[in-house]
Amino acid sequence: MRVSLRLAVGGLMAGMIAVSAVAQDVKPDRAIKYRQGVMGAIGWHFGILGSMAKGDRAYDKDVALRSATFVQELSHMPWDGFVAGSDKGAPTKAEPEIWKEPAKFKEHQDALMTATPKLVTAANTGDVAQLRAAVGNVGKACKECHDDFRAK
Amino acid sequence: MRVSLRLAVGGLMAGMIAVSAVAQDVKPDRAIKYRQGVMGAIGWHFGILGSMAKGDRAYDKDVALRSATFVQELSHMPWDGFVAGSDKGAPTKAEPEIWKEPAKFKEHQDALMTATPKLVTAANTGDVAQLRAAVGNVGKACKECHDDFRAK
Repeated sequence: MRVSLRLAVGGLMAGMIAVSAVAQDVKPDRAIKYRQGVMGAIGWHFGILGSMAKGDRAYDKDVALRSATFVQELSHMPWDGFVAGSDKGAPTKAEPEIWKEPAKFKEHQDALMTATPKLVTAANTGDVAQLRAAVGNVGKACKECHDDFRAK
Repeated sequence: MRVSLRLAVGGLMAGMIAVSAVAQDVKPDRAIKYRQGVMGAIGWHFGILGSMAKGDRAYDKDVALRSATFVQELSHMPWDGFVAGSDKGAPTKAEPEIWKEPAKFKEHQDALMTATPKLVTAANTGDVAQLRAAVGNVGKACKECHDDFRAK
């Protein structure tokens, strides 16, 4: 038991060192561009879903499910780009509070990552009303984080 | 049988119309930025795997599996950004041949999307030699397409 725990803690520390090594290797401008690229891709696919939800684009289940799946996958990716020191280095709307309030920032990340699988489930029903509700919930998660941590 | 086929063809045509509607709505600069953002995210995560494969970064199974999964997911996404008319509109290295040789471009896309699930499988073994081989195959798919269709 004690040995397992020691191994587990050792593994955890190794993981932390690896993450730290990643962060140290990365130049701020590259991290900023990475996270902006992922956020832009989320915006692209979420925009398609939003247009369908609003009735501005013809509803198509296959297109909706594909974009919802991409949004769900992408929702896990931007956070790696918020490395320490990347509050500047290239034009960015990321507020410095992100690095001062990591727990709050993490809560927002989790809210998005909790909402996006439900978007996929809703898209998979083929029911535009369910899609509309799920789009609203994901949009709320986006907005709440942007309100707190993105420059206006 | 005939009715099913007619329905299937109808569905296919509806899908084509939807894709076409998406393409028409999109301004070239937005499509270019979208695909560049996704390609950049692939480069970020594939770079982590490449560093591990080369021994420049400590091998970590969890980090490798996470980045491999992201690369696999992202490998399906850039293609939506190569809409008609987006050979210019913002700085881009995409060669106009992409739109002149769509079948060849699609072959390259398929080669990448075939190689990336094997990257995930290899990362999941925890064997760095298997990861290295899979990284080599994905890198080959990237390079072959870039050689044909990306400005030097």
